[in-house]
Amino acid sequence: MSHGEDQLVAWLADHSPVGSDRCPVGIGDDMAVVQSGPKDQICVTTDMLLEGIHFDLSQATLEQVGYKAMAVSLSDCAAMATVPWAAVVSVGLPGAFGVTEVRHLHKGIMQGAKAFDCALVGGDTTRWYSNAGLVLNVAMLSVPGKISPVTRSGAQIGDRLCVTGQLGGSRAGHHLNFIPRVKEAQILTESVSINAMMDLSDGLSTDLARLCQASGVGAVVGADDIPLSPAALSCADPLAAGLHDGEDFELLFTLAPEAYQKLKRIWQMDVPIVAIGTVIADQKVWLRDAGGQQKLLVARGFDHFQTMEGI
Amino acid sequence: MSHGEDQLVAWLADHSPVGSDRCPVGIGDDMAVVQSGPKDQICVTTDMLLEGIHFDLSQATLEQVGYKAMAVSLSDCAAMATVPWAAVVSVGLPGAFGVTEVRHLHKGIMQGAKAFDCALVGGDTTRWYSNAGLVLNVAMLSVPGKISPVTRSGAQIGDRLCVTGQLGGSRAGHHLNFIPRVKEAQILTESVSINAMMDLSDGLSTDLARLCQASGVGAVVGADDIPLSPAALSCADPLAAGLHDGEDFELLFTLAPEAYQKLKRIWQMDVPIVAIGTVIADQKVWLRDAGGQQKLLVARGFDHFQTMEGI
Repeated sequence: MSHGEDQLVAWLADHSPVGSDRCPVGIGDDMAVVQSGPKDQICVTTDMLLEGIHFDLSQATLEQVGYKAMAVSLSDCAAMATVPWAAVVSVGLPGAFGVTEVRHLHKGIMQGAKAFDCALVGGDTTRWYSNAGLVLNVAMLSVPGKISPVTRSGAQIGDRLCVTGQLGGSRAGHHLNFIPRVKEAQILTESVSINAMMDLSDGLSTDLARLCQASGVGAVVGADDIPLSPAALSCADPLAAGLHDGEDFELLFTLAPEAYQKLKRIWQMDVPIVAIGTVIADQKVWLRDAGGQQKLLVARGFDHFQTMEGI
Repeated sequence: MSHGEDQLVAWLADHSPVGSDRCPVGIGDDMAVVQSGPKDQICVTTDMLLEGIHFDLSQATLEQVGYKAMAVSLSDCAAMATVPWAAVVSVGLPGAFGVTEVRHLHKGIMQGAKAFDCALVGGDTTRWYSNAGLVLNVAMLSVPGKISPVTRSGAQIGDRLCVTGQLGGSRAGHHLNFIPRVKEAQILTESVSINAMMDLSDGLSTDLARLCQASGVGAVVGADDIPLSPAALSCADPLAAGLHDGEDFELLFTLAPEAYQKLKRIWQMDVPIVAIGTVIADQKVWLRDAGGQQKLLVARGFDHFQTMEGI
């Protein structure tokens, strides 16, 4: 595994033992699934957004930043087809920020919360002495919907590989105003049996490699089948944008071919679902061009730790 | 109310509506209590630690910083007498930090987690481009123990006001290696009926004002009754250190006089419990000196927002 962040996550999972009776799904999936009582499960995710990495205050308003912080975690709820329930938000403010800036952030946070009926139940507001960067952290709780949380690790050989929406070019604006696929994930998993699912946060090539790794499978993706966004199409290399750009926040999922056929017939939501490939036994990810030529699809999505020394 | 952070929290609570069926205890207490299923409640807290504000890397090791991040949230679990259950940790690393630093932080995090059987179930590790400050955020879930979570708002007129341990001078070292009073809170609440409780994070004068505000009461504190730590006693003004220094992470609680008498007889833990005052109807906090003279106790604890303009 060459992806620095994945190596780190694997190391952290190995060194943070927890019993499956308390935590049926732990480090490495979109959310942890925690057994909160004899019969009840609750899912939890945490996401930290740093100024200059996840947003740029010369291009985004504080409302947009607050919304994005919530939307990123809501997308994790969608990734496991769970129902957003409650969130706690921590904010680290630059020294020059005051109440006005907190109100603007809160407005965006509540916009995300209200759109998906997720309660804001607590938080922590701190401030740097200096003008260090703005930091937001959202920790979100969700509850299982009608079906159990869907993990990354259930992909079956022969499954169709699908995505929602369109990919690539998110930095042009989509990453600030995307709509997490919470409702689509609910309808999808209630309609047919989904074997594995995750959200696309770090780019298709990187995230698909993660899904394959977690499931112990590989995949073949059709280059011509990837639905490219208008922003991707305006890039110098639209296919590369669709394959590697981060922050699409669409769903990536696999299901049996017959389930896919059924889904095609019954799907009525505005957000399209597109089959982009097939799950294979060989644990590699291949890109097949229009002429049928295959080459390995190298994960080139966003990696916070690409320059880290090996573990 | 003159405390900037409290004004902000009150504003945020007012502007983040949530039904009590989903969230029986919301913004403003040590943890939010969330109804996670028909019968199950789960509590959640979030705490962000900023380099230069909550720790100084010239005085603290990364293990100590990791431990502190967990211990601060564990102390919130203690504040409501709940049982630590699962935590997710987000880290924002300075650009020069790598895997080695993450391992050191993780070691401290696991030290806190193991000491109180709190599972580390997930996280998010990001990195600044620049050498901006280290940020840690812990969001922790806890479950109710044998009794319901104890809030800040139940203090009764005539209650004795008590603290665990000794107060003041935490910056000399205690703030990095304190032991959250998780076990003491369990034993305490199982032994007698506690009407209100919180942990002392921002200094007795500030936190007592919060407890009184939440309960709609006041208090009289005996200046000679405050148990001062050796570090406080070595300060120029030991009483001021005991009253106003932050990060004691001891418990502050109230209980009926007869419950206090019982507690005095049966308490056997190493950490002492000391009565420091009485809850009164008049919604002010008074400090009484040895001669019986009373003056208003002004909240002078730590305030991230003391320079903020009013809301």
